[in-house]
Amino acid sequence: MFVLNTWYIAAWAEDVTDKPFPRRICNEAIVFFRDKQTGKIAALADMCCHRGAPLSLGTVVEEGIECGYHGVVHDCSGKCVHIPGQDRIPEKAKVRAYPVVEKNEFIWIWMGDPALADESLIVDYPYNDDHKNWPHKHGFYHIKSGYMLMVDNLMDLTHLGYVHKTTIGGNPMTHVKAEMDVTRDEKSLKYVRWMINSVPPPTYTKAVDFGGSNVDRWQEFAFSAPSNILQWSGAVKTGTGAREHGNRDGGFSLRIFHGLTPETENTCFYFFTPANGYKQDDPQATELLFDHIAEAFMEDKIFCEGQQARIDERGESHLVDIVSDATRVQLRRIIKRMFDEEQKQPVPVSASTRHEIPITVAK
Amino acid sequence: MFVLNTWYIAAWAEDVTDKPFPRRICNEAIVFFRDKQTGKIAALADMCCHRGAPLSLGTVVEEGIECGYHGVVHDCSGKCVHIPGQDRIPEKAKVRAYPVVEKNEFIWIWMGDPALADESLIVDYPYNDDHKNWPHKHGFYHIKSGYMLMVDNLMDLTHLGYVHKTTIGGNPMTHVKAEMDVTRDEKSLKYVRWMINSVPPPTYTKAVDFGGSNVDRWQEFAFSAPSNILQWSGAVKTGTGAREHGNRDGGFSLRIFHGLTPETENTCFYFFTPANGYKQDDPQATELLFDHIAEAFMEDKIFCEGQQARIDERGESHLVDIVSDATRVQLRRIIKRMFDEEQKQPVPVSASTRHEIPITVAK
Amino acid sequence: MFVLNTWYIAAWAEDVTDKPFPRRICNEAIVFFRDKQTGKIAALADMCCHRGAPLSLGTVVEEGIECGYHGVVHDCSGKCVHIPGQDRIPEKAKVRAYPVVEKNEFIWIWMGDPALADESLIVDYPYNDDHKNWPHKHGFYHIKSGYMLMVDNLMDLTHLGYVHKTTIGGNPMTHVKAEMDVTRDEKSLKYVRWMINSVPPPTYTKAVDFGGSNVDRWQEFAFSAPSNILQWSGAVKTGTGAREHGNRDGGFSLRIFHGLTPETENTCFYFFTPANGYKQDDPQATELLFDHIAEAFMEDKIFCEGQQARIDERGESHLVDIVSDATRVQLRRIIKRMFDEEQKQPVPVSASTRHEIPITVAK
Repeated sequence: MFVLNTWYIAAWAEDVTDKPFPRRICNEAIVFFRDKQTGKIAALADMCCHRGAPLSLGTVVEEGIECGYHGVVHDCSGKCVHIPGQDRIPEKAKVRAYPVVEKNEFIWIWMGDPALADESLIVDYPYNDDHKNWPHKHGFYHIKSGYMLMVDNLMDLTHLGYVHKTTIGGNPMTHVKAEMDVTRDEKSLKYVRWMINSVPPPTYTKAVDFGGSNVDRWQEFAFSAPSNILQWSGAVKTGTGAREHGNRDGGFSLRIFHGLTPETENTCFYFFTPANGYKQDDPQATELLFDHIAEAFMEDKIFCEGQQARIDERGESHLVDIVSDATRVQLRRIIKRMFDEEQKQPVPVSASTRHEIPITVAK
Repeated sequence: MFVLNTWYIAAWAEDVTDKPFPRRICNEAIVFFRDKQTGKIAALADMCCHRGAPLSLGTVVEEGIECGYHGVVHDCSGKCVHIPGQDRIPEKAKVRAYPVVEKNEFIWIWMGDPALADESLIVDYPYNDDHKNWPHKHGFYHIKSGYMLMVDNLMDLTHLGYVHKTTIGGNPMTHVKAEMDVTRDEKSLKYVRWMINSVPPPTYTKAVDFGGSNVDRWQEFAFSAPSNILQWSGAVKTGTGAREHGNRDGGFSLRIFHGLTPETENTCFYFFTPANGYKQDDPQATELLFDHIAEAFMEDKIFCEGQQARIDERGESHLVDIVSDATRVQLRRIIKRMFDEEQKQPVPVSASTRHEIPITVAK
Repeated sequence: MFVLNTWYIAAWAEDVTDKPFPRRICNEAIVFFRDKQTGKIAALADMCCHRGAPLSLGTVVEEGIECGYHGVVHDCSGKCVHIPGQDRIPEKAKVRAYPVVEKNEFIWIWMGDPALADESLIVDYPYNDDHKNWPHKHGFYHIKSGYMLMVDNLMDLTHLGYVHKTTIGGNPMTHVKAEMDVTRDEKSLKYVRWMINSVPPPTYTKAVDFGGSNVDRWQEFAFSAPSNILQWSGAVKTGTGAREHGNRDGGFSLRIFHGLTPETENTCFYFFTPANGYKQDDPQATELLFDHIAEAFMEDKIFCEGQQARIDERGESHLVDIVSDATRVQLRRIIKRMFDEEQKQPVPVSASTRHEIPITVAK
């Protein structure tokens, strides 16, 4: 059960070169590569139309990608354009191509009906392109849980004081008592949390010097269904008017793009990119921030994987919602609605029927 | 297919501290810990009632165990007693608690209907508490076969001369020709075997000096259904009246508690505790005995795992019983009867329905 | 789906000694050993008729093989001939025996109806016995693909220029343009390919000195259904009449027996034996040839395993045949016909019913 008519992050732009790059998304094996002539990204079903060998074992050539087994070539639209030893190319000789877009250092892929693949629906994240003000480093984890458990995780920050006590969390009660403001529309949901006059967590105090003072701390999380979250967090000395007057300089500040992409029903990829918004001229600070965040997210990974193992066995219908689940419950409803609407389409798009859909050029 | 209304060994007492200890028993994930206040053992379903995270990733606190994800606390009866950020605890907020008893260095657990969990049914094994006369060491193996194949193994000692020729077995024909006396009742079965005037096996002669003499050797195995076996074995110089006059001192003597506990249908835990009954003041003798026994039981493990792999594939209906299977066949009948009776209960207890049974405090 | 009434290679003759040798063939666990008295090979179901332990954990004794668990002995015909502690041997006490033949350094096994096991059907390969003219070395790979994908591989040599460009292949177009002559009958298929006046591939030029000249290169592949292929390949200086006058001396020449044996539906064993037909007195040349071939076949393994993974997921019905598939399509038809005919037998032989077939002595 995946939402398919949406853009998922498939890879970091730097991952895809003129060597074939394989990755499974929504349970489909896909090969990515850059067109030798245009440098544009192509994404094809990773199975040669001839004998089914993975195209990712092949070679990128002028006309597209050459299967490493018997030399059949497919172009970036998935059409077979060369068969060694014969001139006629059978009509059936093609593989599915997926719409892909390179934007903000991400490769985005559309897994559903190509006719609906509207680039303007892609989340805008200019900070990834602004290395001067938001120096950052790319992170990537393979998570052995469904992507929704990771989304849950990110949209209920009361876990910070428990899972990340010693890094980005700090005192649990600070999080439980945070003032929280939620806004939402059909496909998104945003919360802003303030922890006024609170003790800064370890990661913050290691990053900047608050002179022992308490801080006014904020967390802005914007969820874009089904699986991307834009985070802006930070803290300045308490009483300096961060909340009332919007002055958030001179303290700690970070941005993170959290992208979750289903690999299979029970596994996903986690793309994250912590950006240093407080010591932009200090590359070591960027590294240190990354290390702290990567360590914290490893803790999340452990919990989501443990949770998945239990849910695989017993389901989740017997679980009990609590007050802090409010946002989580809402975002699940948003995803459910997207999925249900997709199923109502005249030809529902599903992983099992997908390769029979007429192929549209993915550029 | 497990007998559930019975006591299984869950762990060595020393395994369970104030750190959560996870173990799967009868295919249920369970977390064990010691109550901070009383030191008593608690055993809860290892899945938080809130979002399903394993409680074993959490922390033991004054009131019970705190989930490491969002801080929900369950007490030792499985009842949720604290939810961060809210006062009301929903009625449904609880997890199954299992009756547990600490006795004779074991933690015993009752996997069935808690109302029937009668402590007096637990096998008594005072030798584990008698370190002076029965110094011993705890052994533990994870076996990739069902527990019944291990019980079979222990209750047909004709395997000793083949599997353990070079350790505790010795000459095969000695075992085949042993005089055997079997008694039984509804839930137990005991045999006493004598090998009068026989050559002692390697482990025995390494342990004590028989001066080259033959021995009168005994093996007493008391099976307590479905999965525990108390062994007393030994040998004294032949002709000194061990059998007729009951004088079994001055030779070799060991006791072993064999506890088998189902993990899944096809895997189990093997708890064993070889006790040195011949050189009680010599710790090195106890170590040496343990090493010999642990090596021998590793041989059993290999056979039972091989057997399980074949049976998984082809079943066992085509196998052929032989004379030495007599005891094995009887004990299988005893276990079958226990299981069948359990199924006749008004509400049969099964792993899949178990978490809906009303929770009884497990103390 | 296996063809069962046929001879498969089970092992190299040298693999089977007086220690039990286990191997799974057509999804049946089998133990091989040499009769202590005659030195002949026996092959029995690897599951003791008593308690199901793998016989391969036992010991070869005078009368046959002794189970390592409780000492039951089966002879080379699968009949139980000794049960410790009892004289009567139950009629049912036996395991399936498989016809086996040792020939040309191979152990051949017949997995179907023993009554049909005609030794004269075994492919003759005298080169394995001719160490003077065809010095060689045995190779063995475990392949995680069905055996048919490996047969496909060997019978469509257009892959050589892609998969083995840098070893035994050379220029792709040389292969695509090769002149090919195919002959076939009911159970076999042979092609002879000539690449007249072509550039020799890297492996050839490393082996012999063509003085920079082009070569006349041949590949003769004789497929014997369902899974064995005899190869003779080589090259001599172009224009020396190799094709017209049959003079193929003074250049490069190798023979390889390719034997594929199903382990399971999706895995197989690959037996190969590259023989040096050009520098017979130089053991280092034989070693070097083996290394080149083994490296090349590892490349095939990677492709067939990748192909199998994709086909497991999506099937192969949507794949597209091209001109170079002609031979492959024919050989698939031959195998299909063998399989279909086998199913028409009064008692179809299948892996699941096989152990109920009356046992015939396998010698």
